[in-house]
Amino acid sequence: MKEFKLYVGLHQDHMTEVLHCGLKNDTVAETFAVRHVNNMGICFPTRFIKIVPLSAHGQSFHTSIWFVSLLGIADPSYVEQICARYDDYRESIVLRHVLKHLRQRRLLTPYHSILSSSNFEPEHPLVTSLYSHLVLQGNWKECESLFSKASEAGLFTPYIRACEPHAKWTRLYGVDADGDAPSKRGGHAMCLDPDNNMIYLFGGWDGQKSLDDFWVYDIKNERWKQLSHSTSLEKNGPVARSCHKMVYDTKSGCIYLLGRLGDGDLVRQDDETAAASQTQNGETSGGSAESVPSAPTPYCSEFYRYHTRGLDAGKWDLLTFDTASAGGPPLIFDHQMVMDCDAQILYYSGLYSYNVRTSKWKLLQSVLLHFCHSMVLDSSSHVLFIFAGQRDNKYLSDMYAYDITSNVVTELFGNFSTSGGPDACFTQRAVIDAGDKEIYYRFCGLTRAHQSSALTVLQLDAPNWVYRYENAARPGKWTQILPEVLRDGEEGLAQEPLPRYAHQVVYDDSTRTVFMHGGNAGEAEGADSGENVAETHEDDDELKSDHTGERDRPLTKETRLDDFWSMTLQRISSKEVVRRGIYQIRKQQFREMCEEQPAVKALRFLQTEVSAVVDHKSPKEASVFRSLLAHLLSPSVPLANPSEKDSSSHITVDESSDAEAPPKKRSRPNTPDEAWTNQLDEDDISTGGATSSDSTGRPSSPAKQTRAVLCFDEDPDEISRRADTSKPLLAERFKQRTETFEGLLELIGDDAKQPDGSLLDLVDVDNGL
Amino acid sequence: MKEFKLYVGLHQDHMTEVLHCGLKNDTVAETFAVRHVNNMGICFPTRFIKIVPLSAHGQSFHTSIWFVSLLGIADPSYVEQICARYDDYRESIVLRHVLKHLRQRRLLTPYHSILSSSNFEPEHPLVTSLYSHLVLQGNWKECESLFSKASEAGLFTPYIRACEPHAKWTRLYGVDADGDAPSKRGGHAMCLDPDNNMIYLFGGWDGQKSLDDFWVYDIKNERWKQLSHSTSLEKNGPVARSCHKMVYDTKSGCIYLLGRLGDGDLVRQDDETAAASQTQNGETSGGSAESVPSAPTPYCSEFYRYHTRGLDAGKWDLLTFDTASAGGPPLIFDHQMVMDCDAQILYYSGLYSYNVRTSKWKLLQSVLLHFCHSMVLDSSSHVLFIFAGQRDNKYLSDMYAYDITSNVVTELFGNFSTSGGPDACFTQRAVIDAGDKEIYYRFCGLTRAHQSSALTVLQLDAPNWVYRYENAARPGKWTQILPEVLRDGEEGLAQEPLPRYAHQVVYDDSTRTVFMHGGNAGEAEGADSGENVAETHEDDDELKSDHTGERDRPLTKETRLDDFWSMTLQRISSKEVVRRGIYQIRKQQFREMCEEQPAVKALRFLQTEVSAVVDHKSPKEASVFRSLLAHLLSPSVPLANPSEKDSSSHITVDESSDAEAPPKKRSRPNTPDEAWTNQLDEDDISTGGATSSDSTGRPSSPAKQTRAVLCFDEDPDEISRRADTSKPLLAERFKQRTETFEGLLELIGDDAKQPDGSLLDLVDVDNGL
Repeated sequence: MKEFKLYVGLHQDHMTEVLHCGLKNDTVAETFAVRHVNNMGICFPTRFIKIVPLSAHGQSFHTSIWFVSLLGIADPSYVEQICARYDDYRESIVLRHVLKHLRQRRLLTPYHSILSSSNFEPEHPLVTSLYSHLVLQGNWKECESLFSKASEAGLFTPYIRACEPHAKWTRLYGVDADGDAPSKRGGHAMCLDPDNNMIYLFGGWDGQKSLDDFWVYDIKNERWKQLSHSTSLEKNGPVARSCHKMVYDTKSGCIYLLGRLGDGDLVRQDDETAAASQTQNGETSGGSAESVPSAPTPYCSEFYRYHTRGLDAGKWDLLTFDTASAGGPPLIFDHQMVMDCDAQILYYSGLYSYNVRTSKWKLLQSVLLHFCHSMVLDSSSHVLFIFAGQRDNKYLSDMYAYDITSNVVTELFGNFSTSGGPDACFTQRAVIDAGDKEIYYRFCGLTRAHQSSALTVLQLDAPNWVYRYENAARPGKWTQILPEVLRDGEEGLAQEPLPRYAHQVVYDDSTRTVFMHGGNAGEAEGADSGENVAETHEDDDELKSDHTGERDRPLTKETRLDDFWSMTLQRISSKEVVRRGIYQIRKQQFREMCEEQPAVKALRFLQTEVSAVVDHKSPKEASVFRSLLAHLLSPSVPLANPSEKDSSSHITVDESSDAEAPPKKRSRPNTPDEAWTNQLDEDDISTGGATSSDSTGRPSSPAKQTRAVLCFDEDPDEISRRADTSKPLLAERFKQRTETFEGLLELIGDDAKQPDGSLLDLVDVDNGL
Repeated sequence: MKEFKLYVGLHQDHMTEVLHCGLKNDTVAETFAVRHVNNMGICFPTRFIKIVPLSAHGQSFHTSIWFVSLLGIADPSYVEQICARYDDYRESIVLRHVLKHLRQRRLLTPYHSILSSSNFEPEHPLVTSLYSHLVLQGNWKECESLFSKASEAGLFTPYIRACEPHAKWTRLYGVDADGDAPSKRGGHAMCLDPDNNMIYLFGGWDGQKSLDDFWVYDIKNERWKQLSHSTSLEKNGPVARSCHKMVYDTKSGCIYLLGRLGDGDLVRQDDETAAASQTQNGETSGGSAESVPSAPTPYCSEFYRYHTRGLDAGKWDLLTFDTASAGGPPLIFDHQMVMDCDAQILYYSGLYSYNVRTSKWKLLQSVLLHFCHSMVLDSSSHVLFIFAGQRDNKYLSDMYAYDITSNVVTELFGNFSTSGGPDACFTQRAVIDAGDKEIYYRFCGLTRAHQSSALTVLQLDAPNWVYRYENAARPGKWTQILPEVLRDGEEGLAQEPLPRYAHQVVYDDSTRTVFMHGGNAGEAEGADSGENVAETHEDDDELKSDHTGERDRPLTKETRLDDFWSMTLQRISSKEVVRRGIYQIRKQQFREMCEEQPAVKALRFLQTEVSAVVDHKSPKEASVFRSLLAHLLSPSVPLANPSEKDSSSHITVDESSDAEAPPKKRSRPNTPDEAWTNQLDEDDISTGGATSSDSTGRPSSPAKQTRAVLCFDEDPDEISRRADTSKPLLAERFKQRTETFEGLLELIGDDAKQPDGSLLDLVDVDNGL
């Protein structure tokens, strides 16, 4: 069984996927930890387990499982407790939906009655208040003030975070005391010391040779400083290399360095591409396609430590001469390395962990089946995110969360491209903000010209992405990072770095800033538009022809960069959110004015009050604003307004039937011989039944249509709440205002409001719920 | 694309399967009618269509669809009307579930408040009354009287029909004036004239030769009459034959006769088995394995009509000399033929229809891909049920509904054996009661010794089945028919016919009686125990050795039968249902007595009142009855009683938390700075969150457990309903009584009560609803 899924549940019909994994093609027993805690942190009990085999190891083989053993807690008293908590969780979920359903349908008395007999609040008090003032009272001024208060209460934060942010790139021109800065290079390594705001940079490939210079950048003072001209000359210092990785340990102030591209230095030209396209498992595959006929000399996998503070400050340790012989990884390159500083454990491409305290390497149990290209660590929840791997020479858009504590691997996405995420590519970069639970992803990279083509191209217009998650073990949301928006008065295009790959990126938590340095800008076309990259072309060409006469043209024009950038994300302001809300409120106010007040007054309101909160620069908003005029002409059919077509309300009970048949009081006879109806008139069911054997399927004539199940009459509860002078709300107006209310809720975080979705959508065509 | 499924829906996430079909392996366009009406007869609108290819025509081919065209109604005004009706249907479904949910949770005020603002009744008034007297008031006498009233109101009919019925077989010994009756035979044809209670019988194979005698049986007078000694001698009369079919046309009083086994008469010995095992498409395959070397002479497919009344009474018409040349079916045998008497149309093995008025054969559009062995017509809904076919030499347990009017084929079961239905077999028989919407199925037949074996065996202990359906186009339920239960005083085994195949079965709607005649009882072992079949053995053996010296032993012992039976189904009486209900009620009454009254009084109640309604002959009930004594010893822990383990209630809120933390009144502050909770304590969520990264997953200690969402306190609505003197109901007692109430509901039809299922089960582990 190469691939399988595991489902668990309390009922055979309602099972949840908890594992998507595979067995190795051998007879060795494998153990998998299984997810048992949901998004909300509630343990879910299980009674049934379903194993679904997806594929066998050979096309002509059947899947085979020889023995399944289950480990878990079956202690009745413990399970009972778990069940009780889980049931309570489910009770609250259902009640929240029931409450929303009732309020949408104007069943306010039962709504409040349920609330008063249960121990929870379905929404933030400000939202409750907003509902009352908006839907029931139409108290517009109060609504607007409540909306501003909601902003102060932080209710818009989730919305603000969910909006597509804009990138603000700033070119950093810092130099050292001599006016120098790290030279053009790709495949170098960088790491950040967040406590001292320092960025360390080491090595790389400048187009001709590997480098061994070591730099540090002082973020606050915007100054570079060269720590070493050549670490090879220092005691225990690493020799020149590229495609290695460095991590900074905040606890000890040490930098750990591991890996390098392993083939002959002189002949390596396009190290990063060759590496990525020719290896699959992260190990050196014996040199790239361009290597000279002479056998490559594989280096050992040396493991270094550099001290940035303390007595040994400025000194290198060679921790291991060859990690492979110490139980660690063999020499690999373009790998990923992250450090859990609290636990003092390094993680290495999802395969190995290195405990700094015990100096022990450990092969982790859960082997991810493919070479992974991005790995970041959420140090607060102790989860590694591993994604966008490459397997069988295909780029993948998959993403896994590896829970270090429980040793559970969860597949977040089989293909995040189809879930609104970025396309598959490689040599992309990712950084994580564990506090904000966001991963910033891509910052350029290579992709394939076509899905099936082996030709790799530098994608010029690939956007950057934010991946937001609430719970590390559950799929989060992908959002594009938009280019910078220029303010009035600024001219030209926003400053942005060239597309590139083999660059380096670090992230500063405290200032929420991404720093990017160097990389390979690809062929000349892209590089020509750059500022200071043109002069390297001829050198490169000469050198290349010196070394390898047979080299292809496309590879000869590659350009290394030495530019240094910082990037911050700009999100919409809460003031803007308040404006959007108030605009919605005033739109509804205007629509009601059109129906109830002189057209002149409504028009003036539109011209002043509504216009004041419209973003006239947004073509969409401006167009909707103009279309509002139509309400002045046809106030009697307010729902026909095309601008309302994006309504998300599900209340579509036929109004005509309301008008024709006044709601009949339900009679509840106590004797069985009296007529009673079951949900629909008997008439109606038999008509429907006949319809099924009628080839056209036309329903009965409108005249025969039954009255709707719900009447949307004023609820007794409303009378006490509305102002004495006002009239009862018409059903139509109630629905309109509910729509406006639900539109406003889109700006408010999930935790503070009624749940999304409608109970109606749960109705199956045939089997009820 | 050999096989595909089609889904439609209003949302991409909620789609319904409406077609499971296949395309032929050619380039000709095919059109499929798609289901658009649900179980309740409500048209459902659709926005999305999903085609899921399941298999290609070749293993190495991809599925290919060249062009998809959609036909349907998109007229907005029409669709809007459909949507409104469908939404109303969904509203009522959701409200029914919400109401059940609230009542289960003792939220009675909102329950009644919703009822009073909506236009439907969720249940039969008797059920409402039962709830009030049982759960709220504990008025036991009134409950019992209500339960009897429910019986009178017919509320138990669905339950009675769903119970496994018992068969009552009666051997019929009728003879004609000369003391004769039809001789031993198999593969004969029978049809029933329901208006005159006559059963016609013609032809068959007696083990040596085909027959051409024609009989009629008078059901009321239990007399046979021979209409013709040999129809071959009559004008236009059919020659001797077997494996043909006859249908009776109630409108004209005519009998239609078609088909025959087509190989040489003299050498055919085991016609039915050879036929079934050696052909696949219903056409003669050129003779059975035992046919003599001389080439068989295929007959033409003659089509006869016999008049039972009118001027032509007793006369035969030869309608067509060869139906194949008239556009009808070629000569086939062991086929199925049914008649829609109102429409005057004959249906022929799902492939052809014959219009009596126009004398035209028609090849139906929707060809079912395999040779079908059972076909019955629901003449009221105009649906053909076609099932248990044979394809590629495999027996199938599939079932299709062919809606004649709309030309829609619906797959009811891909394999009904896995849906609680009978195993696959062949030469089984089926009859339909369209009024009761039931199909009686099997009445013996052949099956395979093993799934993969070609050896066919006569299954001795195969049960008969009832297939019940509400809507012909949706899967119904299979129920076994149990053997007759003997009453006290009767001795020995119930009278039952021998297992057999190649027998004939007809059904009399008016008396709900199945009549069965003759057939092949298989080898001697089975036949030896019969009464009057032993003497045929030697004759058979002689004849066979005369004709074919090489014949195998197993075939020589087959025995034809001439016994004639009637069978009716015995269902449980409504008196029995009332007893079961009253037993449930008294059990609860006894439990409460144990807690509240002197043990002596409770014991006496158990000994007299409860005992009186226990079926002491049922081992299960007797055992539960004895276990009730435990309540006397431990009245304080009533829920620990093992007899209650089959409780179907979903109310499992932890009681200990109820006791520890008295329900706090929900405070609803209007200012945002006051504390508010969202469904669960913040504490709790963070504890749960930490749990997720804890390898054991143990939740917080019991002491920290939060109070439950629901408190199950007395609802204000209850106070007005209960007797003044009584105390408020304890939460525990409320849940107990609700369980008893829901147990009683199992005896009541779906239409009259709250829906099955719980909203809690709709909660997804992660995503809420």
